[in-house]
Amino acid sequence: MRVLLVGAGGVGTAVTRIAARRPFFEVMVVADHDPARAESAVAALGEAGSRFRAERVDARDEAAVVALLERHSCDVLLNATDPRFVMPLFRAARTAGADYVDMAMSLSRPHAERPYEECGVRLGDEQFAHAEEWEKASALALVGMGVEPGLSDVFARHAADELFDTIEEIGVRDGANLTVDGYDFAPSFSIWTTIEECLNPPVVYEADRGWFTTEPFSEPEVFDFPEGIGPVECVNVEHEEVLLVPRWVPARRVTFKYGLGREFIETLRTLHLLGLDRTDPVTVPGPAGPVAVSPRDVVAACLPDPATLGERMHGKTCAGTWVRGVKDGAPREVYLYHVVDNQWSMKEYGCQAVVWQTAVNPVVALELLATGVWSGAGVLGPEAFPARPFLDLLTAYGSPWGLREQ
Amino acid sequence: MRVLLVGAGGVGTAVTRIAARRPFFEVMVVADHDPARAESAVAALGEAGSRFRAERVDARDEAAVVALLERHSCDVLLNATDPRFVMPLFRAARTAGADYVDMAMSLSRPHAERPYEECGVRLGDEQFAHAEEWEKASALALVGMGVEPGLSDVFARHAADELFDTIEEIGVRDGANLTVDGYDFAPSFSIWTTIEECLNPPVVYEADRGWFTTEPFSEPEVFDFPEGIGPVECVNVEHEEVLLVPRWVPARRVTFKYGLGREFIETLRTLHLLGLDRTDPVTVPGPAGPVAVSPRDVVAACLPDPATLGERMHGKTCAGTWVRGVKDGAPREVYLYHVVDNQWSMKEYGCQAVVWQTAVNPVVALELLATGVWSGAGVLGPEAFPARPFLDLLTAYGSPWGLREQ
Repeated sequence: MRVLLVGAGGVGTAVTRIAARRPFFEVMVVADHDPARAESAVAALGEAGSRFRAERVDARDEAAVVALLERHSCDVLLNATDPRFVMPLFRAARTAGADYVDMAMSLSRPHAERPYEECGVRLGDEQFAHAEEWEKASALALVGMGVEPGLSDVFARHAADELFDTIEEIGVRDGANLTVDGYDFAPSFSIWTTIEECLNPPVVYEADRGWFTTEPFSEPEVFDFPEGIGPVECVNVEHEEVLLVPRWVPARRVTFKYGLGREFIETLRTLHLLGLDRTDPVTVPGPAGPVAVSPRDVVAACLPDPATLGERMHGKTCAGTWVRGVKDGAPREVYLYHVVDNQWSMKEYGCQAVVWQTAVNPVVALELLATGVWSGAGVLGPEAFPARPFLDLLTAYGSPWGLREQ
Repeated sequence: MRVLLVGAGGVGTAVTRIAARRPFFEVMVVADHDPARAESAVAALGEAGSRFRAERVDARDEAAVVALLERHSCDVLLNATDPRFVMPLFRAARTAGADYVDMAMSLSRPHAERPYEECGVRLGDEQFAHAEEWEKASALALVGMGVEPGLSDVFARHAADELFDTIEEIGVRDGANLTVDGYDFAPSFSIWTTIEECLNPPVVYEADRGWFTTEPFSEPEVFDFPEGIGPVECVNVEHEEVLLVPRWVPARRVTFKYGLGREFIETLRTLHLLGLDRTDPVTVPGPAGPVAVSPRDVVAACLPDPATLGERMHGKTCAGTWVRGVKDGAPREVYLYHVVDNQWSMKEYGCQAVVWQTAVNPVVALELLATGVWSGAGVLGPEAFPARPFLDLLTAYGSPWGLREQ
C-alpha cells in the first residue's frame, strides 16, 4: 500500500508516528501547505522514517493533489486536514483512482428558515451524493474514520453484532479531564473544528422521524466517564456519527453529546454572539492597508496550537458509545469506550492524547484495508465493516478499549 | 476660530452637526483617513455646511497633520479619533502652534510586576510630560474634554466651587438602558475603546495613597440612575477622571465606575481569556497568503458600527458625578448628571445618544475658548476652568443637566 497523507498538523504528525511502527505499507507521502511542517514530521521519525516522503501541497488545489497521488502511485489518500478541505481531497482521490479515508465529513449548512428544527445540507451529504460513482468504479471512500467519528461508529456496529438483539438508543459520549499548565483557556483540539461542531445546529436521528436538528447545546446531561475522569456536563452537538450510524446499524434513536463543560459552552456562546465564529471574511486595517480575514481563523491564531500543548497537558480523554437495548429478552445498557492518558501518549509517541486518539484509528483502518480484512466499494462509514477485527487490531496497537455494563 | 477636526466617525460627525448651529468659528476642516467619511459628514450638513471642508489625513502621520493645520491656518485641533492617535495629534498641534482638544488621553501601560496594585504608565502621563513646554509656549492642550472624561470633570469642579466645603469622595458613575433592535450584542460606543477602558487595571485615587490599581471589574455596586434608567451594576474601570480630578479638585477619594451589566462583563472576560483583546498583530491565513492583523480590530470589524445604530436604538444614557462631602457643617451627597434620550438626539441631530453626548461637550468648550470665557496655557483638564459658564452654555445648547440630592 502506498499512502498520501494530506495534513501534517497535530493529527497528521501522530499518524506518521503510529504508522512508522507498522509494516503494512510501502510508502507514506506526507504533504502539507507548509512544507516545513511536512519535513519536520518526517524528520522527527529518524531512522524509522525511511518509508516517508515530505511534500508541499495546497489541499484546495485538486489538480495538484491528483498530480501528487499519480507521481507517487498512491493507492489511498488519508485526509488529516480540517473539514473545509474534505471535498477537494475527496474529488482528487476519485480523479486519480485512489481510495480515500477521512476523519470528518463534508460540511453541513443550516436550514434557511428552520435551522433549529430541520436539517439543511447534512454532514456528509456532498460526499454521499457521489456514492454510486465510487461504487461503480469499485473504489472505496471510507469516511469519518477517526476516533469520533470512527471508533465510536465501530463500537456501534460491535454492539449490534455481538451485544444486543435490538437497540433502542445509541449515544456517542465524549469527555475528558485534561488541563493545560500555564493557560487559562487552551482547547485540546482544533478550535476551528470545535466551533463548527458546537455552533452548528445539533442533529438527532429518530427512526420514526429521520434526522432533525435542535438549538445548540440542547439536552444537557451529566455523563459519568470511566477511568477516573468522572462526571462531565454533555450537550448535543452536530457530529458525523448521527448521520452515519443509522445507515448501517438499526436503532430507534442516535445522538452525539460532547462533554464541553459550562465554561467552554459560555465561551462558544460569546464567540457566536460577537460574530467571531464566522468564516466569511471581514475587512480590518493592516499595516499596509485593509486586509480580509476570517474571524474564526483569528480566534485560532490567538490560541496556542493544541498539537504543541502535550508537554503541559495532564489528564485523560475518553471517546465512547453508550448503547441501550435488549439482549436475550432482558434490558441491557453498556458504554463502550477508549481512554488515552496524555502522560502515556506523550511518553510513547510524543503526541498529546486527543490528537493521538484521533490518529490511531485511521492507521488501524488502513492496515485492515492493506491486509484485505476490510474491503468494500462506495462511500462507506466505519460501521459498514466488521467491528471485531478493528477492535482486536486496536488492542494489538497497545491501546485497548473497554466495556462498562451500566 | 479655525478648527481642524480629526476623525469623522460617530463622534466627529456629531461634532459637525452640533457646531454647524453655532456661529463662534469661521472654518471647521473635517479630516479622516477615509476621505469618504469626511465628505459624507460635510455633505450631510447641507446648506449649513458652508463653513466646513473635508480633507483626507492619516492621524499617525504627524507631518501631514502639521501641514493640514498650517494650510488651513487652524487655531485649534479637535481630536475625535480613538486613543491610539492621541500622541501624534497632540505633537502635531504643538509643532504647528495650534491649541489642542481631545476626549481621551494618552494610553496607559500596566505595571510590569504588580499590574493590579500599582500604576505603570498612567493615562495621560505622556501628555502631562509635555506640560511645561505647552505652558512656556502659552499654548493650551485641553485634555479629556468629552462627556466622560469632560462633563464629568466639570461637574466635579462645580461641586467643589458651589456645593461643598470639603469633599470626601468623587465617583463618576456612567449607566444606560439602551437596547438595539435586531442585535443580540451591539455596544453603543467604540468597542476598541471599551475594551481598553475595561480590561486595563482600573485606577483609583486616595489622597493618602496616591494613584493605585485594582483587578478589573473590582468593587461592584448597584447605582440607581435618574430619569427612568434605574439600577445598573457598576464596576471600577480605568478612566481619565481619576487621573484628572485630583490635580485640580481636592478630594479624599476619586473613582470611576461604569454600568456595564453582568453580560457585558462576562463578554469582556471571555475576549481577554481568548486573547482577542490584544492589539499586537497575529498572523492568519488570507486569500493571498498570510496577513498580520490586530485581534481587537477584528472584534471591532465583526460588530456593527455603533454610530450607525441610532435608528434601531432605544433608551437613555446617563453620565454623571456622584459627590459626598460636607457643606455648612452638614453631610451632603449629590449626583450631578446629564441624560440624553436617543429618540431626542436622533430626531434633533440624526446622531445616537452616546456619540452625541460625547460630541456636544468639546463643542461647548471650543465656544468658551473662542469667546475668551475660558483661557489658559499648559496641559489642562476640564476641571482647571470655571464650571458655571460651561454648564450654562450646555443648557443653552438645549441639553440641560440635573442635580439629585441623595
